[in-house]
Amino acid sequence: MVPHLVTALNGPINELEQRMLEATPAIERWFRLEWMEHTPAFYCAVDVRNAGYKLAPVDTGLFPSRFNNLAPEVMPLAVQAAMAAIEKICPEARNLLIIPEAGNRNSFYLESLHRLIGIFYQAGLNVRLGSLDPALKKPTHWRLPEGQTLAVEPVVRQRGRVGLKDFDPCTILLNTPLMEGVPKQLLSVHEQYLLPPLHAGWTVRSMGRHFQIYEEVAKKFSKLLGMDHWLIHPITHACGPVNLDDAPSLKGLADQVDAVLTKVRRKHKEYGIADKPFVVIKAGDRRHGLASLNVRDAKDLAAKIERARIPPQAEPTSSSQGVELVVQEGVPTFERINEAVAEPVVYTMDRYVVGGYYRVHAEPGHPDQLHPANSHYVPLAFEPSGALPRPGVKPGVSAPNRFYMYGVVARLAMLAASYELEATDPESDSVE
Amino acid sequence: MVPHLVTALNGPINELEQRMLEATPAIERWFRLEWMEHTPAFYCAVDVRNAGYKLAPVDTGLFPSRFNNLAPEVMPLAVQAAMAAIEKICPEARNLLIIPEAGNRNSFYLESLHRLIGIFYQAGLNVRLGSLDPALKKPTHWRLPEGQTLAVEPVVRQRGRVGLKDFDPCTILLNTPLMEGVPKQLLSVHEQYLLPPLHAGWTVRSMGRHFQIYEEVAKKFSKLLGMDHWLIHPITHACGPVNLDDAPSLKGLADQVDAVLTKVRRKHKEYGIADKPFVVIKAGDRRHGLASLNVRDAKDLAAKIERARIPPQAEPTSSSQGVELVVQEGVPTFERINEAVAEPVVYTMDRYVVGGYYRVHAEPGHPDQLHPANSHYVPLAFEPSGALPRPGVKPGVSAPNRFYMYGVVARLAMLAASYELEATDPESDSVE
Repeated sequence: MVPHLVTALNGPINELEQRMLEATPAIERWFRLEWMEHTPAFYCAVDVRNAGYKLAPVDTGLFPSRFNNLAPEVMPLAVQAAMAAIEKICPEARNLLIIPEAGNRNSFYLESLHRLIGIFYQAGLNVRLGSLDPALKKPTHWRLPEGQTLAVEPVVRQRGRVGLKDFDPCTILLNTPLMEGVPKQLLSVHEQYLLPPLHAGWTVRSMGRHFQIYEEVAKKFSKLLGMDHWLIHPITHACGPVNLDDAPSLKGLADQVDAVLTKVRRKHKEYGIADKPFVVIKAGDRRHGLASLNVRDAKDLAAKIERARIPPQAEPTSSSQGVELVVQEGVPTFERINEAVAEPVVYTMDRYVVGGYYRVHAEPGHPDQLHPANSHYVPLAFEPSGALPRPGVKPGVSAPNRFYMYGVVARLAMLAASYELEATDPESDSVE
Repeated sequence: MVPHLVTALNGPINELEQRMLEATPAIERWFRLEWMEHTPAFYCAVDVRNAGYKLAPVDTGLFPSRFNNLAPEVMPLAVQAAMAAIEKICPEARNLLIIPEAGNRNSFYLESLHRLIGIFYQAGLNVRLGSLDPALKKPTHWRLPEGQTLAVEPVVRQRGRVGLKDFDPCTILLNTPLMEGVPKQLLSVHEQYLLPPLHAGWTVRSMGRHFQIYEEVAKKFSKLLGMDHWLIHPITHACGPVNLDDAPSLKGLADQVDAVLTKVRRKHKEYGIADKPFVVIKAGDRRHGLASLNVRDAKDLAAKIERARIPPQAEPTSSSQGVELVVQEGVPTFERINEAVAEPVVYTMDRYVVGGYYRVHAEPGHPDQLHPANSHYVPLAFEPSGALPRPGVKPGVSAPNRFYMYGVVARLAMLAASYELEATDPESDSVE
């Protein structure tokens, strides 16, 4: 179950919504049985796209950093979810160390950390911030826009344990995607819980693997509902490594673009969808190579890539060695707030949906590329009344009903991430 | 942790609030450890009284029947708590049978049932209503004020199982306090979960036992916070059986009234409280004998009892046999909404506080007796902003902070009820 939130927008009637509402008890039971076998990814931010004819996740972040965008009203849900998680992981826990993104002093991010600290404090833990930033050598205060401060201290590694001076946590919450790899202070930590585990970082994760697993999850779920899994799944091909400077390598990529477009066209024909298909090309590890890129025709690929290339930064060799890419069916968002494109992001903690928000693009939108720099955020707030979904209401017209569907799809993506973490767990293959 | 709700009223500065806010992580950890050893009472409605100088529970109901009074915004918390409960009790559950109060067709009660059905549907169960009322012989629809209907069917007992025609639940949720004892259809049910258990009914429970156990819980908790447990405990003496027609029996009761008043006077002196002490006399099993009665002086007892006696109904002999009574320190409520007395009621499900409301007495209040017939109800709704408590805020001035304290005390009462159910569990003493 999910909090039933204002989605702010209503779209055309959606058969999917109807199906999910009618199947609520079966869906929730299905998730319950999954959680008997699998451990939920500790917390997630799932980007979903509602195209009116399908609803699909397009990104599953395991280090959510926008808790500040959640409505204050949903915070108790996050706290309750955190309590449930702690109870399972380490009921005797007293202390939690949060490790934030090194070097990120963006005021929105600091607000997000402030929220996160509040959630775990309320859930019953002494919470402190520990930085891995080598530039941070002594306890420091970061100022929040509203005048409060966050105390942050250098992480101290003592024998097998990670902590702060005079603060020995039983659990360490990572709020950094470990883009640069695993810092040495976090290696070989066996006495404490690291949440999420180190292999949730982007040096290990692969978007191709995630969507491959997601497809299996979506198939299994769709069987339960007796529906085509394409309705909740974006067709995704993993390609790579692709050398962006190499013509044959780009030709291979163009073939994948063609292959995905052909599959999508077939689906559009099957469902009588008039929209012209496009694909989104993304870096498979989200670290280098390309900004996300929308392509409607393989012929345009080379020119578009030229415009979208990100100059290599930290790892200058990666570009010529080739980058892992995914070619994904573009799922257009049909949601708008004041004519601006609005993309829902759903937050989960433990097994629960705890809230969400819309990422709203200030410009009406260049059709090929979105500009997150110009985004603002609108919380999915509680409706003033009628927070429970109404099974009898016509599909598509009830905001709480709409959000239930978002929560289901987000949890499917989160479940896929859980499978993914099991599959990549280094401990499961080797005995230390 | 609890949802942080609008308490609508702010009172004088309260040291207790400060102490609880500062100790939040320790308090939540303490509860976590308790739940490792004990099973939460499935759902509870706890009446608390805030006297400004102390905060205490005065009634712990194990069959909450006013879910309709909770704010719609908190329903997702109830659903999340229900999911957590189901996951522990019977993760494979598909079907839930709710057994409502037989014969209660009050429209508020039906709205409460409607909410309860919605909560468990969203939590992932097929929910149906089964009546034990012998007058209900075929499937019936009860009409709700807003035009919807509730389908209710006669309970069918087949061999060892309780269900409906064509509906075999794995769990049966009792929403009736079993005032008349346990109906024969519910006896010897061993294959299904009965929640709460049958011995949660008022033929087994005793208010005297509940508050005796509560005092132990309050002492243990107060030790954690280094405070006097009187600040959260109403002094309570159990008396009985008392024969209201018998002078020596009444004299014994008057002695208990004196004894409690003396203890309270001592405490008032210790804390410099000017309020004149009073006691509340209540029926220990809430079924017969007396309406709750406020007494300031043992001398007034006889005359007051004469006015407050409830004519024996179902069990005409009980009055002459004597009734179990409790004499409890009166904890005045200092909260008012528009000058009317406002008494908070906190709802819990599983380990979680899921919401609450104020019972508001329309008349400014006869000092000796409250008149629930003239009550109305005000949900403790979410604040529009700042739902998280603010540890830095001056005590007494933040509504979310106030409600945290209410949630803690309500959970202590719920914990006492859990101990109570363990102590009275017939299965724990006998091998069947």
